[in-house]
Amino acid sequence: MVPLSQPQAHYLFGVMRLAEGAMLSVFDGQNGEWDARVVEANKRRGMLECVEQTKPQTGPPDLWLMFAPIKKARTDFIVEKAVEMGVARILPVLTDFTNAERVRVDRLQAHAVEAAEQCGAVYVPEVAEPQKLAKVLDRWDSFRQIMMGDEAQAGRFAPLTGSVGPWAVLIGPEGGFSPAERDRLAGLDYVQRVALGPRILRADTAAIAALTLWQTTYGDWR
Amino acid sequence: MVPLSQPQAHYLFGVMRLAEGAMLSVFDGQNGEWDARVVEANKRRGMLECVEQTKPQTGPPDLWLMFAPIKKARTDFIVEKAVEMGVARILPVLTDFTNAERVRVDRLQAHAVEAAEQCGAVYVPEVAEPQKLAKVLDRWDSFRQIMMGDEAQAGRFAPLTGSVGPWAVLIGPEGGFSPAERDRLAGLDYVQRVALGPRILRADTAAIAALTLWQTTYGDWR
Repeated sequence: MVPLSQPQAHYLFGVMRLAEGAMLSVFDGQNGEWDARVVEANKRRGMLECVEQTKPQTGPPDLWLMFAPIKKARTDFIVEKAVEMGVARILPVLTDFTNAERVRVDRLQAHAVEAAEQCGAVYVPEVAEPQKLAKVLDRWDSFRQIMMGDEAQAGRFAPLTGSVGPWAVLIGPEGGFSPAERDRLAGLDYVQRVALGPRILRADTAAIAALTLWQTTYGDWR
Repeated sequence: MVPLSQPQAHYLFGVMRLAEGAMLSVFDGQNGEWDARVVEANKRRGMLECVEQTKPQTGPPDLWLMFAPIKKARTDFIVEKAVEMGVARILPVLTDFTNAERVRVDRLQAHAVEAAEQCGAVYVPEVAEPQKLAKVLDRWDSFRQIMMGDEAQAGRFAPLTGSVGPWAVLIGPEGGFSPAERDRLAGLDYVQRVALGPRILRADTAAIAALTLWQTTYGDWR
C-alpha cells in the first residue's frame, strides 16, 4: 500500500480525474516499476495498492552533468534532457562568465521527476544546489573523470578516451569559460577536453551532444 | 555594397541601434563571412560595405533532418538544433501518428536564419514544406541512406554503419511510427535503424542525439 501526498492526490484525482480502481505505473527509485491500483481517491489524499512489478530497479550510470545555469527556460530544458539522456546527478555550477539568475532547485527537481516519468526511467537524478565551479574543483575527487565540452577545440574531434568509472560532463556558459578557468581545467589530468563540431553550440545542445558521446562510449547506451 | 531589406534595416538600426560606421559580420551562403561597415542607416533601408572576408564559404554535410512536427515550441527548437548540429535541409514529415498542428514554414525558416547567425554557420539550411512520409518514401532516391531513430531498438545500441555519402536522419513522432510505417521502413535496404539508449527520448532530444552520432561518424565533426 502506498499513501499519496496531497500534490500527488491533487494531480491524479483533480487533474487527471482517475477514480478508484484505475491502474497506473509507479516507481520510488528503490523497488523498480509497479502496476498499482487506486484504492482510495480523495482530493487531498489517496492510497495505491501495488499489484505487480513491471520493471526491475535499475540505476543511471555514475555520471554527473555540470552546467552553468542560463535563461530559465533553457535551464529547465537542460534538466529535462539530462534525465532522458541518463545521468545520476545534475549540478549547476557558477562560472566566471555565468550571468546567474536565481536557480530554483526545487522547481528543477520537480522537472526532473516529470522527465523521469515521461522517459520511463525508474529513478530521479538529484539536482544539487548551485556551487561555484572553482569550489567544486577545489574539492574534486580525481577518481571522477571530467569530459569538458570545449569551444576552443572546435573542429578537432577525437573519440572520447579515458576509462570506465565515475564521470562528469562539464558544459560551459554561453560566453565560454574564462581564461583562468580554462587554464585550470587544462592542467587537470582527469579532465578531457572534447570538441563538439565546427559550429558554436548553445549550452543545451552541447549538453545533449556530449551526453550522447559519453553514453555510447561508457554508459548504458552500449 | 550590400543593400538591406526593410526588416534587416529595422533590426539593425531600430532594434540594435547601429549607426553609420558600425561594423558587423555578414554572410549570404555563397561568399563566406565578411566584416562589413554600415554606410547608410535609415529605419527602412540601409547599405553595408563589405570590407574583408573573415571565413571561407563552407557548406553543411549533405545531410537532411526529417522529423514529425510536434508542439510549436518543440518544433522551433528542433529547427534551431538542426542548424547548430549541421544539416543541409530540414524536412517536416507527416506520419500516421503525427498530430500535426499547422506548420508555418516561413517562421521556421526565420528560426533557421537566426540559429545560423548564432552558431557561426555561413549557410542557412532550407526548411521544406511538410510532406507525408509515405509520399516522401515513394519518391526516395535510394542513393540517400536513412538513419532512423527507433524506439523498438531501445538498449541495443550498435555503431552506425553504412557508407559516406548523402544521408537523412529520420525521427519519429512522440507516439512512434505506426506498424505499417515501421514495416515499410524495416524493408528498405537503405534504412538503418539505430537505438538511442534504454530510455524513451522526446523527439527533440532524439534529433540531437542522432545528429551527434551521424556527425561524428560521417559528418563535419570528424
